[in-house]
Amino acid sequence: MSRIDGRTPEQLRPVTIERGWSKHAEGSVLISFGDTKVLCTASVTEGVPRWRKGSGEGWVTGEYSMLPRATNTRGDRESVRGKIGGRTHEISRLIGRSLRAVIDYKALGENTVVLDCDVLQADGGTRTAAVTGAYVALADAVAWAQQKKIVKAGRKPLTGTVAAVSVGIVGATPLLDLCYEEDVRAETDMNVVCTGDGRFVEVQGTAEAEPFDREELNALLDLAAGGCADLTALQTLALEATL
Amino acid sequence: MSRIDGRTPEQLRPVTIERGWSKHAEGSVLISFGDTKVLCTASVTEGVPRWRKGSGEGWVTGEYSMLPRATNTRGDRESVRGKIGGRTHEISRLIGRSLRAVIDYKALGENTVVLDCDVLQADGGTRTAAVTGAYVALADAVAWAQQKKIVKAGRKPLTGTVAAVSVGIVGATPLLDLCYEEDVRAETDMNVVCTGDGRFVEVQGTAEAEPFDREELNALLDLAAGGCADLTALQTLALEATL
Amino acid sequence: MSRIDGRTPEQLRPVTIERGWSKHAEGSVLISFGDTKVLCTASVTEGVPRWRKGSGEGWVTGEYSMLPRATNTRGDRESVRGKIGGRTHEISRLIGRSLRAVIDYKALGENTVVLDCDVLQADGGTRTAAVTGAYVALADAVAWAQQKKIVKAGRKPLTGTVAAVSVGIVGATPLLDLCYEEDVRAETDMNVVCTGDGRFVEVQGTAEAEPFDREELNALLDLAAGGCADLTALQTLALEATL
Amino acid sequence: MSRIDGRTPEQLRPVTIERGWSKHAEGSVLISFGDTKVLCTASVTEGVPRWRKGSGEGWVTGEYSMLPRATNTRGDRESVRGKIGGRTHEISRLIGRSLRAVIDYKALGENTVVLDCDVLQADGGTRTAAVTGAYVALADAVAWAQQKKIVKAGRKPLTGTVAAVSVGIVGATPLLDLCYEEDVRAETDMNVVCTGDGRFVEVQGTAEAEPFDREELNALLDLAAGGCADLTALQTLALEATL
Amino acid sequence: MSRIDGRTPEQLRPVTIERGWSKHAEGSVLISFGDTKVLCTASVTEGVPRWRKGSGEGWVTGEYSMLPRATNTRGDRESVRGKIGGRTHEISRLIGRSLRAVIDYKALGENTVVLDCDVLQADGGTRTAAVTGAYVALADAVAWAQQKKIVKAGRKPLTGTVAAVSVGIVGATPLLDLCYEEDVRAETDMNVVCTGDGRFVEVQGTAEAEPFDREELNALLDLAAGGCADLTALQTLALEATL
Amino acid sequence: MSRIDGRTPEQLRPVTIERGWSKHAEGSVLISFGDTKVLCTASVTEGVPRWRKGSGEGWVTGEYSMLPRATNTRGDRESVRGKIGGRTHEISRLIGRSLRAVIDYKALGENTVVLDCDVLQADGGTRTAAVTGAYVALADAVAWAQQKKIVKAGRKPLTGTVAAVSVGIVGATPLLDLCYEEDVRAETDMNVVCTGDGRFVEVQGTAEAEPFDREELNALLDLAAGGCADLTALQTLALEATL
Repeated sequence: MSRIDGRTPEQLRPVTIERGWSKHAEGSVLISFGDTKVLCTASVTEGVPRWRKGSGEGWVTGEYSMLPRATNTRGDRESVRGKIGGRTHEISRLIGRSLRAVIDYKALGENTVVLDCDVLQADGGTRTAAVTGAYVALADAVAWAQQKKIVKAGRKPLTGTVAAVSVGIVGATPLLDLCYEEDVRAETDMNVVCTGDGRFVEVQGTAEAEPFDREELNALLDLAAGGCADLTALQTLALEATL
Repeated sequence: MSRIDGRTPEQLRPVTIERGWSKHAEGSVLISFGDTKVLCTASVTEGVPRWRKGSGEGWVTGEYSMLPRATNTRGDRESVRGKIGGRTHEISRLIGRSLRAVIDYKALGENTVVLDCDVLQADGGTRTAAVTGAYVALADAVAWAQQKKIVKAGRKPLTGTVAAVSVGIVGATPLLDLCYEEDVRAETDMNVVCTGDGRFVEVQGTAEAEPFDREELNALLDLAAGGCADLTALQTLALEATL
Repeated sequence: MSRIDGRTPEQLRPVTIERGWSKHAEGSVLISFGDTKVLCTASVTEGVPRWRKGSGEGWVTGEYSMLPRATNTRGDRESVRGKIGGRTHEISRLIGRSLRAVIDYKALGENTVVLDCDVLQADGGTRTAAVTGAYVALADAVAWAQQKKIVKAGRKPLTGTVAAVSVGIVGATPLLDLCYEEDVRAETDMNVVCTGDGRFVEVQGTAEAEPFDREELNALLDLAAGGCADLTALQTLALEATL
Repeated sequence: MSRIDGRTPEQLRPVTIERGWSKHAEGSVLISFGDTKVLCTASVTEGVPRWRKGSGEGWVTGEYSMLPRATNTRGDRESVRGKIGGRTHEISRLIGRSLRAVIDYKALGENTVVLDCDVLQADGGTRTAAVTGAYVALADAVAWAQQKKIVKAGRKPLTGTVAAVSVGIVGATPLLDLCYEEDVRAETDMNVVCTGDGRFVEVQGTAEAEPFDREELNALLDLAAGGCADLTALQTLALEATL
Repeated sequence: MSRIDGRTPEQLRPVTIERGWSKHAEGSVLISFGDTKVLCTASVTEGVPRWRKGSGEGWVTGEYSMLPRATNTRGDRESVRGKIGGRTHEISRLIGRSLRAVIDYKALGENTVVLDCDVLQADGGTRTAAVTGAYVALADAVAWAQQKKIVKAGRKPLTGTVAAVSVGIVGATPLLDLCYEEDVRAETDMNVVCTGDGRFVEVQGTAEAEPFDREELNALLDLAAGGCADLTALQTLALEATL
Repeated sequence: MSRIDGRTPEQLRPVTIERGWSKHAEGSVLISFGDTKVLCTASVTEGVPRWRKGSGEGWVTGEYSMLPRATNTRGDRESVRGKIGGRTHEISRLIGRSLRAVIDYKALGENTVVLDCDVLQADGGTRTAAVTGAYVALADAVAWAQQKKIVKAGRKPLTGTVAAVSVGIVGATPLLDLCYEEDVRAETDMNVVCTGDGRFVEVQGTAEAEPFDREELNALLDLAAGGCADLTALQTLALEATL
């Protein structure tokens, strides 16, 4: 039994990674997971937040947002409401933690990289596309900082690669990279962030309808590990191209 | 003496208008004026704000925002700061007023169109690109509403077309459609919104460095009227294509 | 055909300019344009905002607000709502820009003048009364700063004078200095800020009902230039009196 | 030993009560206690807050604010800061409670009166001037509502009069109606709100420097009762004049 | 005629003072006045707010809050609403002023003590329980600071003791320490803060239903003075125990 | 090698569950995991949020907060800052989701239960203590609603039990129920929410220092499942006692 868009359970949607999308940012990527499109920019600034000054160490943080009409129904702007919602906070924090997992703060020196992930169009998996695209933007930004000598010669701030994918159980079948329609029907929903060497950075599983058992959890983790490996290969391919 | 990008004083930057950019919005346009790129979506909802209920008349409003790294230096997100700045307020209001100038509220019926203009990349003239693109998105959204019978048969909510362009005096020369570098050097800066039949909807001129006299004002108005006519032609061309 | 208050089309309402209204502010003016009454205070502080420190240059800024019952129907306080509306933002910015047009930042030195314009009673034209009154308060504040040696001897921070007036087309007739009742019926509404030598600082025209053509625009600009000249004369007269 | 402005300890500053100051409000008073000037407007609206609907009873509430340059040093606007400070909250609540003490909610019917007290110039005692002026504005607004039949014929919403004054101990001497300079030097500061028949509505005494004993408290209460009686006479006089 | 909980008019509810409730704070007390329970913590930090730097003097401030379900009906969290209400502001300021009345700023040195009073369960008199408990927490925090040499040897920052109680007139009878049910029925409500030597720090009386006369005020002050003396004895007893 | 508090790796801290802590809430529990103390109240209100009206289904939501001095260093109040931080948002959402996992909305009917979890003292594991305590408060609140016939006779809104525990890898050893000191040293940190029948509701694992592999993940899941089973037994015991 095939999925609504004809994929097999362990198949990613078509992924595109367009580097250098913005002329201003030190790193910028327009990533798409099917109809989900996220613009990820990496902004390098010299200096670090106050609480980190004098440590000799850098900082990496993330901010996630959705354009009001990225979704099927227009949502209010958080700037107009005057406050950020819980979901936005949660995903911004996830992006920051995920990228920091592959950063050597000492090698980065007292510099800050902000990863802005703005969802231009949403069709499920926006946070995993954001993490996956942000890594590529970060890699370009770090390369830029190395070339500009903002990062000292010989220092390698990036200690690995990172990618993320969603998995879920829909109608008792574990599926990789859920689109929106699958996501709303999922009994269990999990977002997994992996490094390129196959280890876990984040595992966030939530029972949407029914609690899940260990066997289901294992099936989801297997699927996610495979999906992240595929995404890692696509990131590498994208970064090998000349910008 | 040519301009920094080689244009003549009365020449627009290359303009592209990509309709149907978003799969969700009733109308959506990615417009570019040179390196300025604005995503304009038009969202139709049935019903009107509370103060207009029972009037039989519709409403059109606009919201403008810039992605944090649309500019050369990253700006804080207004959602994170918890308040909208004066400039954002001012431009959002301008967009709403400009588009309402070509709307017949009665013909629209008690429906609302929200025009979201999000600047993905900025290089001067973001508000004028926003107005120009928003018109095309609005036209598509109105056509959609007519087809869906949300607008009653035979009703024509659009009474004309609208486009906008910036003009300014740089080094004593009046120039059309300023890019960022010209904008910061302008002695006088003016944004003009015109209807397709050459009348004015908004004229906003500001002396940045030196007050301007009537003659300079006239030269700027002439330039702007010509630029808006060019933009009107490009809008028409874009709307003639099959979506 | 005369106007609702018996004026000719090119006639200002009675204008009063009461200097030294407040015992605390370095400059203070209660200005009235007919029933519109605005209290304008100019506050001088040594030092400038952070982004201007060390430049040797001063800064001038404006804040506009309306008392809740300045209008016919009580409005909510913006402090209670916790945010400033778009209209307030827009006018505050206009006041700042208008007054900065006649300031020599170098001559002012690293000092800041804040112009607070609080509308005590509104009957149309509050922003133009605010700009016109703020100029007089600014002139008094600058004189105070010169006398206190906060501005260095021989320096002249004021490079000219500035005044503002509204004009509009009501029932096809261009009118000067609209009162509220005229304002709500205007097809086109324009606010014009001029220097004392007859040049323009701001021109903001908006089609409220119907787009306007170049001829109408010209008629409005002529009317406004005349009105500003009259206001300039009244400002001069007021400033010649001993405080 | 006389006071800094030559008054005796039990003497009020010159008090002026200017009724009908605003053309829009149902009741409006510009009151001055010496150099303290407060504009008090009373706005009548039909209907009551949600929690009171259907009760047949009205509501009276107060809002207090200071213009930024009402004081010697310019303060930030609470609307710009985005929140109301504790002092403003406290005084707004005091004004509401004080005026409600002389209101018969049933007689008022389901109508609301908002008392806006905006300090135009401050020299100590702004809250007591606000309460005293608000009473006069309220009386005018109630008379207006009676005349307009918004209050039913024969109903008397006002059950008495109310006035307020500050007292304090300065240099061991109890003083009435402190000006700013006395206020900052006061060891004890007390605000007292009385009805016209000499009873207390609010007694708020605070030891600023040194706790006070019962004897001092009694001396202050005696002074305050006398001051409120004087103010009641001035209110009555003002209200007897034809508006 | 006895009270709803069987007390005599001049009787406090059972009071418990549990010191050292929190393992983190320098001083911490869980105080109960009957069913009212307030957790008071005193946090000592070296340094003072910006406006006090270099003065050689310390600072003491208070913050009051109620858990959402401290009351019979759940209230919204002020953090979720995004602003602090007037009542919270008012009580926080009262706590700060009351405790500062017994502090010698010079002896405290440039150190700050924050008194957090969080109402875990409310049954009337939460602000008076907060002040009474905060004093004990402050005493423990000051002792800690003396022992840690944060306060210089020989310095005594505490100049006395402070306690607070509510009194009110219910059914024409003056009552001490009102529980919630009495509080809502009170015609007059008064909160009194006294030092241990019987002087007044704050007297805040409010006519809830009916203005009160001097005789009633005297009866309430007598009751309050007695109640504060009882509370002072209980504070002393609590502080004599070994922590 | 034993832990800093002498526990074995798979041992919980001493857990206490005090039901009926508050006299107002329909369910209330003071739960402690060692020195972590959380007050959990369950508030039942008839009716549901607007978006759920008419569905016949109920709603359960959670709010988490920490008292400012629950931690070793005083934190700012979120109500004073005017916004809720990302961590608070994240945990509030976790609590809501966790408890909804054991709710039959239809059986609950159109009623809402709000679970307030306020951390009175923090020593690691506050969110897991909150979920575990909130379940017991919810069970009491549901029983109350059944008895009051707010839930229809025969309906069982609770479909199971839920408990939560933290696990982490510290110095290469997987440990159950981390205290604060262990938490800051953990290489990997995981919070797990289980139902009483051993299935998972939430699994949130985060690599703090080093990404983790599948084997480590399995060891942590085993530990957590055991810990949740122990907590389930303690919940059952607590609920068997007569309130």
